[in-house]
Order: sequence, then structure tokens, then C-alpha cells
Amino acid sequence: MMKLFSERGTVALASHITLEEVGASYEVEFLNFADKAQTKPDYLAVNPKGRVPALVTEYGTLTETPAILNYIAEAFPGANLAPKADAFAMAEMNAFNSFLCSTVHVAHAHKSRGHRWADEQSSFDDMRRKIPQTATANFTLIENEMLKGPWVMGDQYTVADAYLYTVTGWLEGDDVDPAIFPAVQAHTARMNERPAVRKALAMLPPAP
Amino acid sequence: MMKLFSERGTVALASHITLEEVGASYEVEFLNFADKAQTKPDYLAVNPKGRVPALVTEYGTLTETPAILNYIAEAFPGANLAPKADAFAMAEMNAFNSFLCSTVHVAHAHKSRGHRWADEQSSFDDMRRKIPQTATANFTLIENEMLKGPWVMGDQYTVADAYLYTVTGWLEGDDVDPAIFPAVQAHTARMNERPAVRKALAMLPPAP
Repeated sequence: MMKLFSERGTVALASHITLEEVGASYEVEFLNFADKAQTKPDYLAVNPKGRVPALVTEYGTLTETPAILNYIAEAFPGANLAPKADAFAMAEMNAFNSFLCSTVHVAHAHKSRGHRWADEQSSFDDMRRKIPQTATANFTLIENEMLKGPWVMGDQYTVADAYLYTVTGWLEGDDVDPAIFPAVQAHTARMNERPAVRKALAMLPPAP
Repeated sequence: MMKLFSERGTVALASHITLEEVGASYEVEFLNFADKAQTKPDYLAVNPKGRVPALVTEYGTLTETPAILNYIAEAFPGANLAPKADAFAMAEMNAFNSFLCSTVHVAHAHKSRGHRWADEQSSFDDMRRKIPQTATANFTLIENEMLKGPWVMGDQYTVADAYLYTVTGWLEGDDVDPAIFPAVQAHTARMNERPAVRKALAMLPPAP
């Protein structure tokens, strides 16, 4: 049985939703980030990066959301969560996920993980002030250029939808009003109707 | 014919090497970043992100290195540049590329692209001071945990090798001595022997 390591409020939600979408047999462990559980030796033995998600499979442990999402899609082809038959569409989906991973998520991380890239409190404050601007620029690109609708890739629901839904959930906390992105907001509403999303959300530990 | 947009010193080199590896018929245009060519309307019509690489194909334009690399591997299956037959190995390769994209490249970008995430000169200076530390931490993980050797994925040369080679090329400029990572350094030496690497390097515009 696969095991997902996750935590409330993290990008691991995308992998969790996707495990539910495919009907996988899995267990999930929520690490208590308030206790820095992700930096303790027990977990570093699972994932030396000290981050979530990590997906333990019968073949080994996977990290990095884009890789985990594609792996789940590949392992459960019947769920049809990736446009495998069309190499260009597959690449477009991968490009979308890569943008979320390297640009959207990274911008968001400058709010409370500035210590990854700087040392001074003044830099952390500066980074934090800029979050609404960078998040708005990124979601403007998603709204106007990338989200085909109704799903990210058009008519086919794919793993990119769980990923977009997850990072969209950070907008309000980043002081951006999601209503300025109507297509993205409609996407979130559609996602909230999916049983897999409801089930994954219901399994989250209580908010602190 | 495919067309790659690139520039000296950028991550687009990984895609360029890979086009050479598969023997693709392509042309390459180097944008003059000193003239901010990547931010001009002509190029924004190709890639609204204003970055490289962008790969124009007969089906449309692709961005994001991990997506472009996998697309080239998929479009030229005879070159065998991805472990497609093994879903877990494929996911491991994708995880490696995702780490380069969202962690290694992003850390490097804080040297001269700090304006993406902050506004104050003091923050840029702080970020720049920290580069050797973050680059060293990232390459320590690659050296000790990720690079299987002789190639990233072991015996099979994959698209991940061109990507690792490209970001490794930034170490010295980031004030890290590559010699402290002997496995990575040996990988660079092996890459430098490949005809595809030599050809792509020979096509770069002169250094400014």
C-alpha cells in the first residue's frame, strides 16, 4: 500500500486529491510542521529534503509534486488523468505543472520561507510585502493564457487540476482577492464539487 | 522544423543539447538579454512569460525545461532519452528535473534576479550573499543522494543529464568550487565528451 506524507496547508494536498481521484489504496500521515516534524531524523530518512509531499511506493519513495502526480496518473491509467496519447498535450500539462512548481509555489514560499534565500529580517519583510504583486502576476498569466476551461487542459480533467486548485487555495492568505480571477474562481468551485476533493479535505487534521 | 529560443548562460542550453542528442531538425535563435530582447513584444507573442527556453513546434509553443525535455524524448523515442518503460524510474527522473527547476535553478536566480521576489537593494545584496550556501546545500543533496552515476539515472543517459550539466555550469559563477562535488564534476567531464554537448556549446553566441 502506498503512503503519502502530507501536512495541512501544503502542496501535498494535490497528491492527496489525486490518490482519491484514482481510487488508490493508500494511507496518509500528516506531519506536524508546528513541531518541525519534517526536519526530524525519522522523516529525513524518508525524504532527505525535509519537505512534503513524499509518496512511499513498493518501488521506492518519490518526491516533487509534478513527478508524484504523473506517477499516480501512470499507475492508474483507467482514471485517464493525463493526456498520454497526445505528446504535445502531455507536454503542455507538464509545462503547466512546472510553472506552478517553479514560479507560483516559489513566489508563495517567499511569504514565510524567506530564510531559504536570505538571512536578514529586513529581506523577509521586503519579500512578504511583494507577495500580492507576484501572486497577482502569476495568476493573471494562468487566468488569461493558461487555463483552458472548464479544466486546465480543456475538457479533460487531469492531475494539473488538483495542483491548480491547491495553489489557488493560497491566494487569500497571500492577500489577493480570488474574485479578480473569475476563470480560476470558477475552477475552484468546480473542484469543490468533486468527491475526491471533499474526501481529501475531510481527512486534513484540524487547523491549529 | 522546430525552433528553440535560447540565450547564452541560460537553462535553455539543456533543451539545446537534447535537440542535438536526438538529431532533431531545428533552428535556434539566441535572444540578446543585454538588450532585454526577451521582454519585447515580438518575443512576448511567442512566450508571454518573457523567458527562455521556448520551443516552437508544429503543434504549438512549449515552455518550461522539464516539459520541453520530456517532449523531445517522447517525440524521438529511438534516442531512448527517458526510461519510459518503467513508471517508477520515469517518476524518479521527473523528480530530479523538478528539483533542478524549482529548487536549484530558483536558488541560483536569487543572485541576479532578486527583483522577482523583493524590491530593496539590501534584500538583493542579502540574497546574493547566501547563494554559495544554498547552491552548496543543493549540490550536496545531488552528490550524495540523487546522482546515481555514471549518469543521473544510472547506466542510461537521459534528458536529466543535459539539465544537470547546465545548472552545474553555474556553480563557479555562484562562488562554489565544483571540485567539492567529485561525482558531479566527473559527470560534467563525461558530458563534455559528448558530440551533442560540443555542438550545442559551439553554437552559442560569443560571450559579451
